[in-house]
Amino acid sequence: MLPDNPLYGVSGVQAGIIYLGVGASAPVPGRGLASIALIYKGSIYLFDVGEGTQERLVALGLSPLRIRAVFITHLHGDHFFGLPGLLQFMTLSSRKAKLSIIAPKGIEDYIANAERVTGHLRSFDIDFVDVKSGLVYRDENINVYAYPVCHGSIRAYGFVVEEHPRPGRVRVDRLEQLGVKPGPFISRLRRGESVIVNNIVLKPEDVIEPPRRGFKIVYTGDTRPCITTVENAREADLLIHDATFSSSEVNEAREKGHSTVREAALVARLAKAKCLALIHFSARYRDVYLLAREASSLMSCAYAAEPQLLHVIRL
Amino acid sequence: MLPDNPLYGVSGVQAGIIYLGVGASAPVPGRGLASIALIYKGSIYLFDVGEGTQERLVALGLSPLRIRAVFITHLHGDHFFGLPGLLQFMTLSSRKAKLSIIAPKGIEDYIANAERVTGHLRSFDIDFVDVKSGLVYRDENINVYAYPVCHGSIRAYGFVVEEHPRPGRVRVDRLEQLGVKPGPFISRLRRGESVIVNNIVLKPEDVIEPPRRGFKIVYTGDTRPCITTVENAREADLLIHDATFSSSEVNEAREKGHSTVREAALVARLAKAKCLALIHFSARYRDVYLLAREASSLMSCAYAAEPQLLHVIRL
Repeated sequence: MLPDNPLYGVSGVQAGIIYLGVGASAPVPGRGLASIALIYKGSIYLFDVGEGTQERLVALGLSPLRIRAVFITHLHGDHFFGLPGLLQFMTLSSRKAKLSIIAPKGIEDYIANAERVTGHLRSFDIDFVDVKSGLVYRDENINVYAYPVCHGSIRAYGFVVEEHPRPGRVRVDRLEQLGVKPGPFISRLRRGESVIVNNIVLKPEDVIEPPRRGFKIVYTGDTRPCITTVENAREADLLIHDATFSSSEVNEAREKGHSTVREAALVARLAKAKCLALIHFSARYRDVYLLAREASSLMSCAYAAEPQLLHVIRL
Repeated sequence: MLPDNPLYGVSGVQAGIIYLGVGASAPVPGRGLASIALIYKGSIYLFDVGEGTQERLVALGLSPLRIRAVFITHLHGDHFFGLPGLLQFMTLSSRKAKLSIIAPKGIEDYIANAERVTGHLRSFDIDFVDVKSGLVYRDENINVYAYPVCHGSIRAYGFVVEEHPRPGRVRVDRLEQLGVKPGPFISRLRRGESVIVNNIVLKPEDVIEPPRRGFKIVYTGDTRPCITTVENAREADLLIHDATFSSSEVNEAREKGHSTVREAALVARLAKAKCLALIHFSARYRDVYLLAREASSLMSCAYAAEPQLLHVIRL
């Protein structure tokens, strides 16, 4: 799907999450600062752009030209200080396509200021969208909804990514019963038309199953365990949740507006999310795999996100 | 000298240059964007702060609390986009000491804007100095002078770092001739006082050699080969020079305001610099060691800077 990256050319991953940076504000070598890429049908959707994101994209062979939209959860530096450099890199790569940036108000001025100071002449347009609760982005692949999370006094959002419903499967067994071989008429049926094949009238509902639910992925950004996440992550295929602290550091988590691993797992369980990815680890934890264990009694699928890890959503 | 970094504790490096990032604007994994650290007697002086600098400091065990001053050659993004994150990291590390930032006008607004947008409350003061030609920084260790370089239409500066003259050596042979053993009186002689030892009047000039010249290091930032560098790098111990392009790409170097390896070597040779470090390599060059060979016919000491390389100035 991404011929510039052999990984995708070989394995044919259609949809996946790649963790580019999984650390909290203080840098830990190799861990990176907040940034997550959703790869889908050859496009990249970027969630948060911590310092160093452009280098990690290059390391993975992910071209900045494939980035369709950038979503910023909130305006703390560790979540967006990589954006000016990434935009310059897009210009260096001669990007022409418009880029969508969905972020709290303030990012447009920030970028404008960086471009004024550096004299940078951008080679492409940006569509800035001020985040509000509700639908913030839509294209032929996905809808993205924002919802408010609980991160102290700053405006902070989580994002819900919903794939559009996928077409229903063709019921090959029914076609066989009717003695009809699949042919080009299938696509007309998919469009909702009835067709006549071998003098048999076929209605779509006769041989095509109802559309299937697409995937649903939720990324909280920085947050306390928050009822809005429980509501918005309901039955998500993957919940990527703030897990800055070990479960014993609940007081510090509360003070700093973050979550412990156990709190993240509780939210995931209440939401009936299918899988939980822990992220945004404090620099004090050297072995984040130990943290993941703290979630295992509450969630059967839970892991500590690590840089460059690919979570395959669909092959 | 830097107990937080075992390297310096063990080897006792008193002065050295560590290359933190050696790449040009487009990122190359592991190469880093422009940043150079001068380590001197336990202090760090940082020259340019490309994106990712804070992570590289951490990787080397170099505490951000040890940074005395930051020098920015010019306001292209690849030379200072790491600064907002580094300043936040200093606050996270509870820095209290004032920091000097010597940079072209515009950086103060840039930092103020980043702090306004993020709501960041800095834990320390910054002394912003607008770069002009001449002395721009002075402390008990070094003087730093700025001079204009040739990098297109943008205001761009090179920096000359001069160690203060070092005290002259004690002439032990003369003391022996006079039958005098070294003692505490030496420090009085060093202060310029005459002393009487064993009924002999000793004047400073009798047994202490004249002060020795300190080291001189020049960093050009981005530049075409420029007569001002020849003048300012005269007999420098180390000239760190823009070498964005291979010697065959002289036209592109001219268009983009950069230097080829051969041009950098010519400047170094004309300046009679003792050693040349090549830096700021275009992303197209994968093996920068090959580039260094292009300088070898002009300079007997020339190398391609690489990330984390320590150039020892004095043990």
